[in-house]
Amino acid sequence: MGKPFASLPAPGARPFIVEVRRGAQVESRHPVVATIVDGDGKALASWGDPQAWIFPRSSNKAIQALPLVESGAADAFSLSQSELSMACASHGGETRHTETAAAWLARIGRKPEDLECGAHWPYHEETARQIARDGRAPTSLHNNCSGKHCGMVSVATHLGEDVRGYVMPDHPVQRRVTAAIEDVCGVKIPAEQFATDGCSMPTMAIPLHNLAWGFARFVTGTGLAPERTKAAKRLAAAVAAEPFFVAGSGRFCTAVMQAGKGRFIAKTGAEGIYTAASAELGLGIALKVLDGTARAAQTALGGLLEHLKLLDEDAREQIRPLVEQPLNNWRGINVGSIGLPAF
Amino acid sequence: MGKPFASLPAPGARPFIVEVRRGAQVESRHPVVATIVDGDGKALASWGDPQAWIFPRSSNKAIQALPLVESGAADAFSLSQSELSMACASHGGETRHTETAAAWLARIGRKPEDLECGAHWPYHEETARQIARDGRAPTSLHNNCSGKHCGMVSVATHLGEDVRGYVMPDHPVQRRVTAAIEDVCGVKIPAEQFATDGCSMPTMAIPLHNLAWGFARFVTGTGLAPERTKAAKRLAAAVAAEPFFVAGSGRFCTAVMQAGKGRFIAKTGAEGIYTAASAELGLGIALKVLDGTARAAQTALGGLLEHLKLLDEDAREQIRPLVEQPLNNWRGINVGSIGLPAF
Repeated sequence: MGKPFASLPAPGARPFIVEVRRGAQVESRHPVVATIVDGDGKALASWGDPQAWIFPRSSNKAIQALPLVESGAADAFSLSQSELSMACASHGGETRHTETAAAWLARIGRKPEDLECGAHWPYHEETARQIARDGRAPTSLHNNCSGKHCGMVSVATHLGEDVRGYVMPDHPVQRRVTAAIEDVCGVKIPAEQFATDGCSMPTMAIPLHNLAWGFARFVTGTGLAPERTKAAKRLAAAVAAEPFFVAGSGRFCTAVMQAGKGRFIAKTGAEGIYTAASAELGLGIALKVLDGTARAAQTALGGLLEHLKLLDEDAREQIRPLVEQPLNNWRGINVGSIGLPAF
Repeated sequence: MGKPFASLPAPGARPFIVEVRRGAQVESRHPVVATIVDGDGKALASWGDPQAWIFPRSSNKAIQALPLVESGAADAFSLSQSELSMACASHGGETRHTETAAAWLARIGRKPEDLECGAHWPYHEETARQIARDGRAPTSLHNNCSGKHCGMVSVATHLGEDVRGYVMPDHPVQRRVTAAIEDVCGVKIPAEQFATDGCSMPTMAIPLHNLAWGFARFVTGTGLAPERTKAAKRLAAAVAAEPFFVAGSGRFCTAVMQAGKGRFIAKTGAEGIYTAASAELGLGIALKVLDGTARAAQTALGGLLEHLKLLDEDAREQIRPLVEQPLNNWRGINVGSIGLPAF
């Protein structure tokens, strides 16, 4: 008890490894590319090639939410901290999430059908089972991205733009999002790096370095316009204050921010991405598990937070089972673990 | 249409890669170690290190089922082709699976509670939702390994052994299974390679080469005792005749064997494993996705079957969507694919 998480290897050209162990053996291995960058864009440490272009996916939702604040929509609609947090979320579709999204839409005169994210069963297993037990089907409100889409619809509504098609790359809502990403992350994104996300919005690959740099600037404001800095800090504060609304019960984003007590923000993205940012240290973190596996991403982030001494003893113990993940079988017998190798 | 699957790179010391693509970019990459071995243990082709020790997990269930036939239990209990196939299965927990397992247990005077595999929600999504809608909970019959466990319980029952604890490494049931694996795969397994599987049975790592060799021998009988050869051929015939019972609706094991029309058997294992064997060519295949990801394993097997010219035009078209997997988002929009790189 109380032991720090295993140290990362020395930074360098090689990815670091997250191990999946069974008995005394390593059964599977996940290589992780990661980088830590300050507000000036200086890399403090990297593992693997930080210039690799990766899709941030949902990990940069807080950056995508900047126009929601900057446009005046957040103020016009009196968005709460919970709602701003949900605008940056990949939530579990729990009742508190869907009720918050539904009330938000009602308040701005919109309906769940206006969300163009599609429906999927809630990530939160027990909620999904309950919906099935009730003979109901999931709606767009249960989509993990529904809060982000409420934000997009809010911007279009506030600015008097046609809400329909707000997910299309040429809609002004998306053009503002792309411009915000390019500005904050300091990168011009060529056309061939544009693709489509699970929720039908555009998603654009950028170098991992620029993703980390973007998050360093998100919390420091280094080199950003004052209005943008203010909006970013407001969103970061909302996420830190309401971490349940960014993810949910049992989820690492929520647990690690609760444990961190405001010292950092952190966000997962599909295909093995994590970002984090610490205003206290003035830096951003971005990592990609090269094979895209989520189970390794949270372990990797735990290692990076430990590396940066961002976890006190309490924080470490709170998140330990999500970083040094025990693997228990169907009868609850421990058969292995996921973790960083002991160097 | 009709185009063969992308060719594998030349065999060699490097794993081959399965790509996960989004738009015009590769988003994630899965390295695959694979080998093709004949009945004499000669490697015909390998990618990466075939001497790496890996856990076969469920991929060698057919080998684990040998004592069921060899002990006389299969004959004593008049096991059907479907039941023998289920003894080798990681099934989806569909109604035909659970009813088959329940009837089998009743016939040998045993109950679902005698299965020591634990319960989990069916892999088959629609069946899981239906159980939730009905307000029921999953039982040991829904466990993907329930057929294997019915087989183990049948052996103990037939031989008058205590059924309780049949999953423990020192129970005679397990000692026979371990001996069969060591014999067929031609390897002595040291104690440190023993671990516990998801279904509570022992699972033992062996070199990938020996797993492929074991499956070559399973279908050729090269160097095996006549009784063992006969039992192996009976199990292989049952699996090929009843591929639904090995996996289920929408599953690659079932689809690829249906497409192959008896030219080969194939079986997945947790953490990115696939095995296959062709009596016609007299060889076995084993592969491991190094990061343990299932989505890449079926694509990799498709490439290996293509490499060996085991797929005719019809077969290829039947399994194409499971090998060159389109990735569609929550609204059904195509956003990418999983496949072998075009070399």
